[in-house]
Order: sequence, then structure tokens, then C-alpha cells
Amino acid sequence: MTHIDPFDVSDEQEIDYQRLVKEFGTQPISSVKDLPDYKAFRRGFVFSHRDFDKFIAAAKAKKRVSILTGVNASGSLHLGHKWTLDLVIALQKVYGIPVVLTISDDEAYVTGKVKDQAEALKNARLIAAQLVALGFDMSKTKILIHQQYTRIYNLAVKLSTRCTLNEIKAIYGFDMSKNPGQWFYPIVQAADILLPQEMDGPHNVLVPIAIDQDPHLRLARDIADKVGYVKPSVVHMRFLRGLKGGSKMSKSKPGSAIFLDEKPETAAKLCNQALTGGQSTVEEQRRLGGDPEKSVVIEYLGAHFIEDDKELDKLKADYRAGKLLDGEVKKMLADSVKKYLIDFQARVKLAEKDIDKYLMK
Amino acid sequence: MTHIDPFDVSDEQEIDYQRLVKEFGTQPISSVKDLPDYKAFRRGFVFSHRDFDKFIAAAKAKKRVSILTGVNASGSLHLGHKWTLDLVIALQKVYGIPVVLTISDDEAYVTGKVKDQAEALKNARLIAAQLVALGFDMSKTKILIHQQYTRIYNLAVKLSTRCTLNEIKAIYGFDMSKNPGQWFYPIVQAADILLPQEMDGPHNVLVPIAIDQDPHLRLARDIADKVGYVKPSVVHMRFLRGLKGGSKMSKSKPGSAIFLDEKPETAAKLCNQALTGGQSTVEEQRRLGGDPEKSVVIEYLGAHFIEDDKELDKLKADYRAGKLLDGEVKKMLADSVKKYLIDFQARVKLAEKDIDKYLMK
Repeated sequence: MTHIDPFDVSDEQEIDYQRLVKEFGTQPISSVKDLPDYKAFRRGFVFSHRDFDKFIAAAKAKKRVSILTGVNASGSLHLGHKWTLDLVIALQKVYGIPVVLTISDDEAYVTGKVKDQAEALKNARLIAAQLVALGFDMSKTKILIHQQYTRIYNLAVKLSTRCTLNEIKAIYGFDMSKNPGQWFYPIVQAADILLPQEMDGPHNVLVPIAIDQDPHLRLARDIADKVGYVKPSVVHMRFLRGLKGGSKMSKSKPGSAIFLDEKPETAAKLCNQALTGGQSTVEEQRRLGGDPEKSVVIEYLGAHFIEDDKELDKLKADYRAGKLLDGEVKKMLADSVKKYLIDFQARVKLAEKDIDKYLMK
Repeated sequence: MTHIDPFDVSDEQEIDYQRLVKEFGTQPISSVKDLPDYKAFRRGFVFSHRDFDKFIAAAKAKKRVSILTGVNASGSLHLGHKWTLDLVIALQKVYGIPVVLTISDDEAYVTGKVKDQAEALKNARLIAAQLVALGFDMSKTKILIHQQYTRIYNLAVKLSTRCTLNEIKAIYGFDMSKNPGQWFYPIVQAADILLPQEMDGPHNVLVPIAIDQDPHLRLARDIADKVGYVKPSVVHMRFLRGLKGGSKMSKSKPGSAIFLDEKPETAAKLCNQALTGGQSTVEEQRRLGGDPEKSVVIEYLGAHFIEDDKELDKLKADYRAGKLLDGEVKKMLADSVKKYLIDFQARVKLAEKDIDKYLMK
């Protein structure tokens, strides 16, 4: 079985998404009827799921549903996070769904991604403000930072009795040289995932994740069953590629990510370094055209800034035909990123002022 | 090496205390000069230690010191707990020392000693009131219940990165079929033990324990060293024997313990079932005398109700000489237990009314 470590996905790893669906025993997203009309579904960024059909049915029947997703606190969010979180925001809007957002500052620490807990907490509080600024309906959204909402550990302790260390080993492949915090962390993650049901009783909870987080969901779904909760539904997102290509935009690979706390001017310049699908000279590109599927520039434009499918299709067609050059699409991306970040960072500043009112206590 | 499981000491286990000193690599208490003038030291109930001499020296030099000890929340305290806790109270008095008392309701749950977390918490709150009623100087004493003071998990997470699962396995001998909560719990225990230093900076902390808790201290001392704290000092207490003999008064063996929430009248009756050192008939006992060291009745009298050594020596001599019969010492114990419990339980009732003011938040 392909081993995707939820704690460390290498940029170099080539990911065969169709194979993962088979090997992880998930369902292709195409098996779901009535998908919401949102670009992540229309454009195949969501490629796989577990029980998403049940979630949709419950939401449409006006039953209680909620969405939960989480981020690590190793540093500022980047465009890759925004891509997944935008899906949550879209689904929240479509169905008016309560959302819980968890920030794993403890995970960032036990896996050595930050030097101490103070740094993890500082990151977490920045991320909380970024989450607010992304556009969630904050009247229906709760943000949970583990170091501040330590009551999560009571639930983790409860759930811990419903599995064995052998099961953790089988799912995560850890070895005994890892620290006890890393070994226990999956239980804390399961507690996050089952928290909405612990608070409001059994109901369908959707957890949108990148495929590398699926081990957490396998564990949480097993445990949910044992404690009388509904198995959480899951949709799996592809990774947004890195700036220079590579399977994943990643905090750990310098230069692969556009961070949401980057200076807008600098971020715009980074766009010029993005992988294109073009030819080596302008003359050749005019003549031969470019490959829009190879272009990270176009991927980012489609993921973040072009909502209309026809507009995106036309751009790709023009690019393929050699009518649109790399310099031009790069400028579109750079301008969009710069404008977005200026507005976004102003909203972050506002949110930071009274961030505590958004945090679970 | 003798394996004493801190989570389950069998009543049947015969404990060779001198051998433990050797095998655990601790020091006999006789190696400490200037022992405090307290019965637990004078009568050999404290038999072993780690760095207790350093603790005494620091306390005498008026340096900051503190004492920490903990109890499990599987049910009411019994006379065996009182015996260890009385030592803490005595040391608190002698040196005016701040005390932290931790109640492991999470441990009671993950090891399956209670059916759910609500029961563990209920026990914990009763125990907290019992601790107050035992006579600690509450202006210098903090009580910590894990389910209520979940911030302890932040410290546990911090410390977890300073050891590996291999070390937990080596110290505790757990197997992989145990749940992750049990595997992680030693880190929570280490967090308890190092909490006074985390709060007030590095200083000498004494942890009085029964010998079965020594694995927790070995781990905490290792970790203390790694995070720049003073290695906690330890004194090891013998177990108070069970009512009918056996190496340990234990919650898990019915009839072995006199619980502090027992009806005073019932507790007095239980005293009549206690193991004696007497002969089979009154006539024989008058003639041959009894064995005071075998008598649990006399052990309890000495442990809890007779402060004066000469008084205890005379009682033992009279018993040995056949002047004092089992019925008489049993009545002494029964009367003492009954009177103590009536007063104690009145104090518990008072403490329960405003127990929250004593609990760390």
C-alpha cells in the first residue's frame, strides 16, 4: 500500500490520485450525484470521498450537519491551505452549515516543526486571524487552538480507550523511536474530528482534507463507530502544486509556497518564478502554443481567482493556441495575488485585534 | 529486575523491600542524616529514597522547596492513602512547604478503574474534599484534578518530546495492546511531578510515594534533567498492609481497606476482622503472648493513632507478654477509627461545600 505520511509529504513524491482512491478504499467523487455547483467539484480538485453522498443527503434534508477541518501551526497559511478552506467556505454558504476549525499547535510542536510551544501558539493565533479573514461566516464558525482549548484532551482521553497502540502503529506506521506525544497525537486529532458530535450529539460531519490526512480519518471513523457517533464523511482534495512544480505547495520546501503573510509586492514577484507550460522563446510559443495543464500559473489562477468556467476555458484555449503568452498570464496572477493579499492582510489586521472572541475557551 | 506495575500491585505479591532498594538503585533511608522527627521515619515506614538528603539540605537552608504527591481517582481514599498523605502534612508543617496534590482522574479512566469520565470526576471531587479534611495547610496547598486543570496537557506535550516510546516501554513494560491513553499517561504523570518547577522555576521538589510508583519518578527524573529542572527527590513508603494481611491495603481487593468514606460504625466493625498476631485461645495468648509485628491491628494503631513511640512500645510489649489481648487492641483501633471518621467526615462535608476554591483552574 502506498504510504503517505500525514506528517510529511515530500514535494518530490509523485502522486497517482486514481491509484490512491483504489488503495485507500475510498470512492471517486464522480460516484456522488448532486454535487454542489462549486469550482472545486466542477474542476476535479476534489477527487475522492467517503460517505459524502450521505452528508449531502442529510444537508439537503435540513438535518443537523457540520463541517470540521484543521490546519497545523507550523507557520502562516499559504495558497494551498486557502484552496481547501475556500471549499469549506463555499459549502458553509450553500447549506448554512456550522464549521469548526482546529489549529494543531501541539502537533506542530511534537513533530518538531516549531522550536517551542510559544512559537506554535504565536503561529496559531496568526492563523486564527487568517481564518477569520478568509471569509467564514463567523456567526457559525468556531476556532479551536489546542494550547488554549486544552479541554480537547478530556475527549482525547475518552477516545483513547477505544483503540490500541497496535492500531496506531498499523495506521501510521510509527516506530518506537518517535516520542509519546507523536504517538498520542492521532487520538487528539480524532478528538477534534469527533468534537462536533460530542458537543451536539450524533450527526453527519464532513471533513475536507488533503489525501495525506486520510489516516487520521480512518482512525476517527473507526472510533466514531465504537462510541455511537456517525462516521465522519470525507472529501479528499488534490494538492495545489508548488510554485515551481512538484506535487505539493509546502511550507517545508523553500520557494514552493506563496504565504498569505507575504508582502504583496514580494508575492507578486514570486509569481514570475512559477512553472509555466510555455516554450523557450516567445516566437515558439506564438507558433506552438503552451500547455495550460502544465502551467502552475494557470492552475493558481483557476484555483483562486477565476470563478467562471468559460472564462477559464477561454484562457486555456488562448494559451494553448499561442495567443496568450507566459508573461501575460504571469502578470494576471501577480496582479490578482497582490490585490488579494493587500485586502486580505488588512482583514487579518482587523481580526487580530479581537481574535480572542473567535476562539473556543 | 522485579517488575512492580505502578498501575496494578497485587495483594498477593510479597514485597522484599530491602531487595527493592538494591534493584531499583535507590538509597536506604538510613543513609540520610538529620531525618525529621516524625513517626514515619522513626518507625521505618519510609524505607528508601532518592536525593532526600538534598531536599532536606535545601529546606534547612531556607531555599525554595515544595512537595508533590498524587492519588488515583478510582474511589474514596482509604487508610493506606492517609498514611502517605500524613507524611506530607507533617513535612509541610516542619518546613512550611508549599504542596501540590494531583488527582489522576484520567489515569483512573484509561486504566479501566472507573466506568466513565463522569465517575472519575465525581471520585476526584470527593477525594479533593477528603484531602482538605486530612489537614493540609490550605493556604500553602494546591489541588489539581486533571479533567478540570487540562492545562497540564500543555506541559505533558512539552515533555513528551524529551523521551521516546522505547523509553516508556523499557520503564513500564507495556505491550502494544494497551490503549494510547495508557501509553501517554506516564508523560502526564511526569508533567504533574515537574509542574511546581514549571510554575516557579527550578527547585527541589520532594515526591513521597509508595514503591510501586517509582517508574513514574524514574521517567520524571530523566526528563527533568533534559529540560534543565532539578531532579525530583523521592521518599519511598512501605505499603500499609491489608486488613486481613497481604502486602497492601488496596481498593481493588474487597475487604482489604478501610475507606475514609465508610460509615464510622461499619468501619469500627471492620476493625474486628483485622489480622492479629494472637493465639487461637485467650488462655494461650495469656500464656504465650502475641506477635505485635504480625498484628495488622497494632500496625494501624501505630500508623494512625499513636504518636508517642514509648506508648506504642509499651503496647507492643504488653501484647508480646500476653497482658493485652486481641479483643482489647481491636477495641482500641475500632474506637479510634470510629472517632476519627466521625470528625473527618464532618470536615469533608464542610470542604465539599466550597471545594472549587481549592482546585487549580
